[in-house]
Amino acid sequence: MKIGLFDLAEYVKIAGAFHGEETPELVIGGFMVETALAHLPEGGTYDVLCETTAGIPDAVQLLTPCTLGNGRLKIVDLGRCAVTVFEPHRGMGIRVYLNTEKLTAWPEIHTWYFDRGKGWEQGKKQLFAAIEAAAVSIFGVHPVRVKEDPAAKRFRGNIAVCPSCREGYPVADGPLCLACQGYSPYGE
Amino acid sequence: MKIGLFDLAEYVKIAGAFHGEETPELVIGGFMVETALAHLPEGGTYDVLCETTAGIPDAVQLLTPCTLGNGRLKIVDLGRCAVTVFEPHRGMGIRVYLNTEKLTAWPEIHTWYFDRGKGWEQGKKQLFAAIEAAAVSIFGVHPVRVKEDPAAKRFRGNIAVCPSCREGYPVADGPLCLACQGYSPYGE
Repeated sequence: MKIGLFDLAEYVKIAGAFHGEETPELVIGGFMVETALAHLPEGGTYDVLCETTAGIPDAVQLLTPCTLGNGRLKIVDLGRCAVTVFEPHRGMGIRVYLNTEKLTAWPEIHTWYFDRGKGWEQGKKQLFAAIEAAAVSIFGVHPVRVKEDPAAKRFRGNIAVCPSCREGYPVADGPLCLACQGYSPYGE
Repeated sequence: MKIGLFDLAEYVKIAGAFHGEETPELVIGGFMVETALAHLPEGGTYDVLCETTAGIPDAVQLLTPCTLGNGRLKIVDLGRCAVTVFEPHRGMGIRVYLNTEKLTAWPEIHTWYFDRGKGWEQGKKQLFAAIEAAAVSIFGVHPVRVKEDPAAKRFRGNIAVCPSCREGYPVADGPLCLACQGYSPYGE
């Protein structure tokens, strides 16, 4: 099976280099993206929604034009192992998720998934072999409509200089920048 | 000036391919990462915090081992043009930000930044030349301590099957998965 333009082994290597480690999530995420795209008209313009921050977003960023920094990869962190590829105007898309009922046939994957990777480094070879063999058979696929995200649609408009920190910030955030309103991530 | 292992032109091409477009934020983000790293001991292990989602996270993901999917790139979306590279245990790091007072010397950058890119496509060549010439001279640099993020530290523990949707979800999220608790991003 091809993942994007790559053979699976090639993909795992490239994705592992980007992600810092070759992980099961990268492989599953790659298969998920492929599955969703196979259910959508070729040549369309699609955005992606990930329901987890773990691993899968890196697969999406490598295999699609959707990245964190260009705003086309959306994260709604429900902690579910699922990816939706959708048409951004009407929100219609295909959701691919890990079908937990199908995992009973794959003890390595079952243990890795439900025990949050306990001991997976020891059985890494077997686990990857199982994921590769299971491929898309452990997924569910269904059409969805992504609701509009009011936060994402908020146009923050022009930039002004914050009178407190003197840095630029989106005018729409108020008379001070969010950091000076108390949301600074920095401490003493 | 080198950006990571790349010459600037090479970097812009690679970053543009990943991001989908060669944008000013990618160049500024690249310079910012370089600046922060130059102020930190070589060979350290660092995480990154971005204060914006626009463009700069993609520069970080290409130039550092910190990605969205491996959890080492944190976003605190204050809409400020700033990057902090920090040591993850104690949070000590270097913050690099766009110093708006220094932009008066660079009218192309000033207009692009404060008018949120109005007409930048027309003056793209001049704008990129200005950014390249200004390089790190338009930044401020200061040491910071990143406060602990309670959300990021939350260990979601093992996975259970949600009794409503039958998908796997982090047990720590409650008796149902967050989607079935009402946080689903999907509609009719």
